[in-house]
Amino acid sequence: MRKYDIVIIGGGPAGVTAALSAKNSYPGKNVALIRRDVKPMIPCGIPYILFSLNGVDENIMPDAPLSANKIDIINDEAVDRKDHTLILSGGEEIQYEKLVLATGSTAVMPKIEGNEIEGVYLVHKERDYLERFRTAVHKASKIVILGGGYIGVEVADELVKAKKNTTIVEMMPQLLPTMDEEFGNKVKKILAAEGATVITGKSIKKILGDKTVTGVELDDGSKIDCDLVVISVGYKPNLELMKKIGIPFHEGKGVPVDNYLKTSETDVFAIGDCAMKYDFFTGDLSNIMLASTAMAEGRLVGSNLYSIKVIRQYQGVLGTFSTKIGKTAFAVSGITEKRAKEKGLEYTVGISKAVDRHPGKLQGASEVYVKLIFSTYSHTLLGAQIYGGDSVGELINMVSVMILNKMTDTDINTLQIGTHPLLTSSPIAYPVINATINAITKWFK
Amino acid sequence: MRKYDIVIIGGGPAGVTAALSAKNSYPGKNVALIRRDVKPMIPCGIPYILFSLNGVDENIMPDAPLSANKIDIINDEAVDRKDHTLILSGGEEIQYEKLVLATGSTAVMPKIEGNEIEGVYLVHKERDYLERFRTAVHKASKIVILGGGYIGVEVADELVKAKKNTTIVEMMPQLLPTMDEEFGNKVKKILAAEGATVITGKSIKKILGDKTVTGVELDDGSKIDCDLVVISVGYKPNLELMKKIGIPFHEGKGVPVDNYLKTSETDVFAIGDCAMKYDFFTGDLSNIMLASTAMAEGRLVGSNLYSIKVIRQYQGVLGTFSTKIGKTAFAVSGITEKRAKEKGLEYTVGISKAVDRHPGKLQGASEVYVKLIFSTYSHTLLGAQIYGGDSVGELINMVSVMILNKMTDTDINTLQIGTHPLLTSSPIAYPVINATINAITKWFK
Repeated sequence: MRKYDIVIIGGGPAGVTAALSAKNSYPGKNVALIRRDVKPMIPCGIPYILFSLNGVDENIMPDAPLSANKIDIINDEAVDRKDHTLILSGGEEIQYEKLVLATGSTAVMPKIEGNEIEGVYLVHKERDYLERFRTAVHKASKIVILGGGYIGVEVADELVKAKKNTTIVEMMPQLLPTMDEEFGNKVKKILAAEGATVITGKSIKKILGDKTVTGVELDDGSKIDCDLVVISVGYKPNLELMKKIGIPFHEGKGVPVDNYLKTSETDVFAIGDCAMKYDFFTGDLSNIMLASTAMAEGRLVGSNLYSIKVIRQYQGVLGTFSTKIGKTAFAVSGITEKRAKEKGLEYTVGISKAVDRHPGKLQGASEVYVKLIFSTYSHTLLGAQIYGGDSVGELINMVSVMILNKMTDTDINTLQIGTHPLLTSSPIAYPVINATINAITKWFK
Repeated sequence: MRKYDIVIIGGGPAGVTAALSAKNSYPGKNVALIRRDVKPMIPCGIPYILFSLNGVDENIMPDAPLSANKIDIINDEAVDRKDHTLILSGGEEIQYEKLVLATGSTAVMPKIEGNEIEGVYLVHKERDYLERFRTAVHKASKIVILGGGYIGVEVADELVKAKKNTTIVEMMPQLLPTMDEEFGNKVKKILAAEGATVITGKSIKKILGDKTVTGVELDDGSKIDCDLVVISVGYKPNLELMKKIGIPFHEGKGVPVDNYLKTSETDVFAIGDCAMKYDFFTGDLSNIMLASTAMAEGRLVGSNLYSIKVIRQYQGVLGTFSTKIGKTAFAVSGITEKRAKEKGLEYTVGISKAVDRHPGKLQGASEVYVKLIFSTYSHTLLGAQIYGGDSVGELINMVSVMILNKMTDTDINTLQIGTHPLLTSSPIAYPVINATINAITKWFK
């Protein structure tokens, strides 16, 4: 029997971060990471194995940070537990002082007739599955994607780049249904201009084909021919392990944890997609599954395994996300207008558009559109949605830092930022500040 | 005699922002902006008129925001004042209730023998001067730049792109002397690789030539042939107007103002390069002249002309700046290591390097290097310096927001940010967080 001070289960971003953070915080402890996948994928890179990358092996999470920090990697699966000892599938026993569960999530297969036919793929995270998926995509010529969320539109963008005849079907009235309408419409326009067929407000009733996929039938009875179907309608937490080792969980929702990610057992923590989370503003149960959120949890739990070194600053999940479709980046952080309405938050919107170089005639300029949601009475920034050039990826992080610090309109209005002709919007047009001024102007009236 | 509620003098970023902010904050007031230049230049765009832009007229600050807000533009110069009435050079009288001085700054000509010879140019801000400068540069073949600060290296980068034989001479031991050594060295390497000759630790003693420039003599006696000299050794506040209209100022330093940018007179404010400022951390007099700083002042003063609507959150100047040399962006915010040493601030450095895409094999990936300075005892973030790809322009703004909010190592360690393969570093490698962890690791040891 091997003995470790700290054992992490799960080799995704949450597990790796927790392991590194544990080793940094407690250099004297020995740490093992147990994972099922020998070659774990970078989760956010998965859509890009289809075209932008030359194969799945360009998307492997490097083991170098783990080995550099002398963290043992055990490629196996825990199947049982006795007190503080895990039993692996091969029978080996691993004893721990502290256990961190980071088992992640799995793509959901919806109940659609014909979903077992050959040629129907989920966006799973396992290397070998993805290699088969990639091969099938390259052989296919007409592909239908079900689901117009982030993964769905990223897959669509890859498929049109790979010159496949691509149709994307989303049940809700817009693509990117978690963002506001104008962002979904913008993505639709881009994908359509690239040659994809975008169908919103409809779903797939039936997958057609005998042995292999020949088409799909929508809920309005119309049919689309295709030789491959990609289904991307969401992920659910992996909880089989919790059942096996006796850690309480809510089916489909995750493991309940306290503010320091502790489960009902003192020495067992859960982080990432398999742990339950709550919304930053409303406190509602949140179904957000993002690598960056998982890793913030991983860092927190790694630091606090033996004592609370790092006070948790932010109770809930902000949900900061970015993507790129065609040449346009999209990003969101915090509350959208749609969500503010649903939740009854009184809000004021500020909007601004600018070019992200100045003068705009400089090379590489893109239009940036910023929509901010402020609390009408407290004037606190609640959320931001942006589309624009590549720098939107960091612009949304600046806005996240503003939201996390509960900055108000006047804090942002007197903000000191840097601008440069070749890198950003002009200081006069800087869209995060001007969207704030747009909201302020509404209050002054 | 025309009567205005609010008169702004100066058509640069500070003046324009103050005018817009005044109109937004007090929609019922009428606002005039008096400026000398009919076609004011975008100040940060000036180096780029030399090559990246097709001429000076591509770098004109648009009047559209002013006219859309019904702000009158008066192309003239104030030469005297009686009580609340300005007298313009043409004799016209303009009465004001509130006056905002935003006269900006002028390039300094150092005392060097031969600096009056034809072919010696400063980086002035006037359109017509810059047009002559551009024409002279395009005719020249060998050019020497004196001054390796931000403007000097930007001009050098433009000149090598324009295939000019370019030499840049900086008196201090490194280029970008306000940043730490490794950043100056990186710029030197880039400019040298582009074909420029970089000379540090030396200055120009004498400009050679009879009627037109034929070369320069350095302080070590060596000579460099050239047919054009660009001098970029700094800017000084424009204070002639203050002398004419009787507003107290410190020669070479600016107009002393209170926290709300008020001068010694109740109804007169001064903002931007002509107003004195103090450092965010040390409270020392600061010589920073940045459009973004000027505009933060413009917004503050515009809002607070008649009553204090907007409480000033940040007393001093942070100095957030970015630029791009070759394909590499450079940025700084707050305290550098050099400055921490000079000022006796106890500090801990955190460093991290990453690739700004993930996996790094994706197109458009650049290496990002982040250096953070933390206060050793209070653990507050004091400063950041970064080089990397274009997104550094917004990454430094994220860090500025962190510094302004006095975030500590643990705040940053538990930060929620978004990451995306095509836009940012991987969450495991995210360099601002990893540089913070690097500092934390030093404290844990």
